[in-house]
Amino acid sequence: MSIILFFFALFSSTSIVTVQSFCVADLKAAQTPSGYLCKAPESVKVDDFVFSGLDPQNTTNGISISPAFVDQIPGLNGLGFAAARLDMDVGGVVPMHTHPHASEMLIIVHGTVTAGFISADNSVYIKRLRKGDVMVLPQGLLHFQMNSGKGKATVYLTFSSTNPSVQLVDVALFGNNLSSDLVTKTTLLDLYQVKKLKGVFGGSG
Amino acid sequence: MSIILFFFALFSSTSIVTVQSFCVADLKAAQTPSGYLCKAPESVKVDDFVFSGLDPQNTTNGISISPAFVDQIPGLNGLGFAAARLDMDVGGVVPMHTHPHASEMLIIVHGTVTAGFISADNSVYIKRLRKGDVMVLPQGLLHFQMNSGKGKATVYLTFSSTNPSVQLVDVALFGNNLSSDLVTKTTLLDLYQVKKLKGVFGGSG
Amino acid sequence: MSIILFFFALFSSTSIVTVQSFCVADLKAAQTPSGYLCKAPESVKVDDFVFSGLDPQNTTNGISISPAFVDQIPGLNGLGFAAARLDMDVGGVVPMHTHPHASEMLIIVHGTVTAGFISADNSVYIKRLRKGDVMVLPQGLLHFQMNSGKGKATVYLTFSSTNPSVQLVDVALFGNNLSSDLVTKTTLLDLYQVKKLKGVFGGSG
Amino acid sequence: MSIILFFFALFSSTSIVTVQSFCVADLKAAQTPSGYLCKAPESVKVDDFVFSGLDPQNTTNGISISPAFVDQIPGLNGLGFAAARLDMDVGGVVPMHTHPHASEMLIIVHGTVTAGFISADNSVYIKRLRKGDVMVLPQGLLHFQMNSGKGKATVYLTFSSTNPSVQLVDVALFGNNLSSDLVTKTTLLDLYQVKKLKGVFGGSG
Amino acid sequence: MSIILFFFALFSSTSIVTVQSFCVADLKAAQTPSGYLCKAPESVKVDDFVFSGLDPQNTTNGISISPAFVDQIPGLNGLGFAAARLDMDVGGVVPMHTHPHASEMLIIVHGTVTAGFISADNSVYIKRLRKGDVMVLPQGLLHFQMNSGKGKATVYLTFSSTNPSVQLVDVALFGNNLSSDLVTKTTLLDLYQVKKLKGVFGGSG
Amino acid sequence: MSIILFFFALFSSTSIVTVQSFCVADLKAAQTPSGYLCKAPESVKVDDFVFSGLDPQNTTNGISISPAFVDQIPGLNGLGFAAARLDMDVGGVVPMHTHPHASEMLIIVHGTVTAGFISADNSVYIKRLRKGDVMVLPQGLLHFQMNSGKGKATVYLTFSSTNPSVQLVDVALFGNNLSSDLVTKTTLLDLYQVKKLKGVFGGSG
Repeated sequence: MSIILFFFALFSSTSIVTVQSFCVADLKAAQTPSGYLCKAPESVKVDDFVFSGLDPQNTTNGISISPAFVDQIPGLNGLGFAAARLDMDVGGVVPMHTHPHASEMLIIVHGTVTAGFISADNSVYIKRLRKGDVMVLPQGLLHFQMNSGKGKATVYLTFSSTNPSVQLVDVALFGNNLSSDLVTKTTLLDLYQVKKLKGVFGGSG
Repeated sequence: MSIILFFFALFSSTSIVTVQSFCVADLKAAQTPSGYLCKAPESVKVDDFVFSGLDPQNTTNGISISPAFVDQIPGLNGLGFAAARLDMDVGGVVPMHTHPHASEMLIIVHGTVTAGFISADNSVYIKRLRKGDVMVLPQGLLHFQMNSGKGKATVYLTFSSTNPSVQLVDVALFGNNLSSDLVTKTTLLDLYQVKKLKGVFGGSG
Repeated sequence: MSIILFFFALFSSTSIVTVQSFCVADLKAAQTPSGYLCKAPESVKVDDFVFSGLDPQNTTNGISISPAFVDQIPGLNGLGFAAARLDMDVGGVVPMHTHPHASEMLIIVHGTVTAGFISADNSVYIKRLRKGDVMVLPQGLLHFQMNSGKGKATVYLTFSSTNPSVQLVDVALFGNNLSSDLVTKTTLLDLYQVKKLKGVFGGSG
Repeated sequence: MSIILFFFALFSSTSIVTVQSFCVADLKAAQTPSGYLCKAPESVKVDDFVFSGLDPQNTTNGISISPAFVDQIPGLNGLGFAAARLDMDVGGVVPMHTHPHASEMLIIVHGTVTAGFISADNSVYIKRLRKGDVMVLPQGLLHFQMNSGKGKATVYLTFSSTNPSVQLVDVALFGNNLSSDLVTKTTLLDLYQVKKLKGVFGGSG
Repeated sequence: MSIILFFFALFSSTSIVTVQSFCVADLKAAQTPSGYLCKAPESVKVDDFVFSGLDPQNTTNGISISPAFVDQIPGLNGLGFAAARLDMDVGGVVPMHTHPHASEMLIIVHGTVTAGFISADNSVYIKRLRKGDVMVLPQGLLHFQMNSGKGKATVYLTFSSTNPSVQLVDVALFGNNLSSDLVTKTTLLDLYQVKKLKGVFGGSG
Repeated sequence: MSIILFFFALFSSTSIVTVQSFCVADLKAAQTPSGYLCKAPESVKVDDFVFSGLDPQNTTNGISISPAFVDQIPGLNGLGFAAARLDMDVGGVVPMHTHPHASEMLIIVHGTVTAGFISADNSVYIKRLRKGDVMVLPQGLLHFQMNSGKGKATVYLTFSSTNPSVQLVDVALFGNNLSSDLVTKTTLLDLYQVKKLKGVFGGSG
């Protein structure tokens, strides 16, 4: 038998090559601390790795965020990163928030955006970003973005997590049933201010 | 030679047993993403693994926090956890804050403490804890503690990081040079409120 | 529409904010190398993050250990740490043991405790600890604790694992069906000694 | 003293809040398996987190790649992800290659791009992507991109590594001193083909 | 009660010691990004940790590979490494391939083997190895092995993954339905060469 | 310019391809929790990835262990695994020990070996292994190997750590200055037994 058949034979007889090299999420199954359970290999298709919707959404008040997380691309499961698209009308603001488990990068595609974060030693890192600029926002720190230009702005976001949760300060403080008394005591905000914002964000108590 | 000498010989002749099993921090050297550089093995002493100061500190306004982090115990380097002691006078509050890289556990040693956190889906998890109670606060989420009893309270804290940084919402928003205009736009707080708290926390702008 | 409604709209329309930020253990489901499967988010309650029993237990011979591991606090799942309480009567000893996957910290709350560990280069690190002292015991190394004071001692323990298994040398060598012949050959202990301790620890063979 | 001063006092007296929450690369210092050594905190500036050059480069033969890796943004150090911009003229191809330590996502900003990867079980996952489409390419697998449209194409790339190395099959086989004999034996390519491509890629031997 | 009973009592009354210290794969259950679900502890047997088949296999064209991966030893689950045996007749070649998630070590047991890898900066690292030699091949890089001696060769392989997938360049390029046109464009190989090897490896298109 | 020049141009003009894909240990520099500092790329040679000494050593009492750890192969740095060779004369025993940070696999090359480990739930997993058998010993658990055949035995060992430290129970208890009183109290061994073994292993106190 010729040497040419060597390789094919190796391939055919060896079980090693059948090992999967990814773990596509079974979105209907349970999660684990390391991500979703894997789909059966025989049901994996190319569309598990593709998402066709990172487009500008119907904006509400000039802000729209379109995620490409593991729930949109099951093939991301276990791979440790994700992406999103952010569109902002003039004056649009993504208010103060954190991502408890993810760092974030901004890639400015269009427009002018001012972004900033506050470090744990209380320094302020703020920059006016233009098309082609990139900025990284380290994990877990308070940050914001705002359209500081004269036209619309488009930003691609990437995260170091397949499913980056977000905590908006206002929503966390004023958008649930955390009592106004507790909010006041733990933030030093005036009771009037707390009540007013609870009205805006739909909180009770 | 008798079988008894087997083991000793194995020990004496084998280089394997001289491998270090820890990496004590050289606190004066550079840091890396995985922690401090390791001290030379021959200079490691038992006191690198011990800290004698997890005592109540002079409280200011009834709150004191005493850390046992890697800067206090160099032997913690690379091991992924740390501890602290929290003392609270009647009415004492640890205000809304996050730990960007660490989860936290509270062990109530004395007194009554109300602790709470807000999850990323905006649910409130709040509990009045008594002596012997333990509560876990998952990584990166806003949380607070307050002495809700009639006497002093003592709490041991443990963290899933050797050097758990902290970000206090008030200090981050009002204790630096982040401009009042930006704070107002990114938090929806009234300008009056922002100015007032900047006065309290020493912020400028 | 006013700027105030910006934030609320962002919150309402964006799917990002509904991502869970923790994975509470479903204690009845299977485990994985990274921990338990997660409970369905809608069934998570505050008590999944709280344990009300880190109290001194009925001591047997003056030793009691009360764990607050993931089986007691399902909210610890995936977070990489846990705690326990150790009470020791005068002369109480926690014998030589290891934690195969966890480092440990001791926080002395009451009394005087001598703790020690032996490193992989065979150095002995031993210290008499008093109230307020903290000591770290690096992962996987033989260590012990003993009450070396004149009264009871109370110690809080923290571990760098949600479910820190323990291996007690005596129990491993003398408390199962490992044959006396094998124990003798692999430890150099006298057969008489092995048989005697097998009697104490209930081992056979 | 009033309750308002509580927080400020807490902030002022506690050493915890001075802990850094990131590790900016000292690009002139040594590397470690977890990344670069960290810069001294006092020399960190906002520009360590920003890169202003993710623009189309001078293309050679219609391809240009512009990286935003840790060498461009030192603040990425230890954060586990990075980004890049890819521009392709009509017919442009990024040939078969792998990233040994990183998964990749493509975000199509402009044009039409056909991308594909081959899994370890030898299935082909290939897709014609249009503006707004996203595709993930799991770690370590052979993949390619080509401009399959009628105009230029622009793609943002994100990686799950701060410094994603790349191995181009042609360059690895034909662009160094690996002997033609070894290439022939280990790839089954004809000697004529190997010699021809060594000519193209500048290899010797 | 005597001090001797201390230890036994500790063992009997403490739930800590019943924690499992491994996660044996349930090979019929789903996988997760961190490995297989764990088997119920009560059904774990010693044979879950043992495999009796790392023997030379029937060689085809003088090459045989026998794996001891998690599918052969369920006790490897979650432990991050595996092994295999490679036998090569005179002139046998393991062609250019990568392991997308694993580094590899070769231990030459018998014969003479030439192994090499190409780094991401395109350097060639190649060595003629004899009995007793060990070589490491870093993760994700193209490498090959060939019997360069005058007799059979036997090599033990270890990997830094419990289930190291493999991607053979020839099989990936020529052994599936990736179109000849795409292969030609993404590799610069001549169409004739591509068609010829598709014939050898059974590819279509 | 022809399409053939595409690839070469891509390679020549892009800084991406110069990124290192490994971190070879600088054995004279400091260590970090993630391993040694990396050698400068320009001084890396093929011999950093090769070790030529995994041969049987001069045995003492019939046991020899030859390591291929990061100190022997600097190219292993950061890769998370290592290997060794164990030779045992008839009756040779590797006594009870643990590897605090590594799991281990045994590959029996020659002879008959009985190996066993004790799990954290105190079950004994023991097996008589013959040529071609493989056994895995999970991290941190007490285990032993003995030559249970009628001739010499040769075993290859692999570990899930680049520098697997070892702790031999006898050496830890009897080979240093840990006082006989403490050993007795923490192991329940008779004082006579402790003194006798301290004599064998050279311990004091």
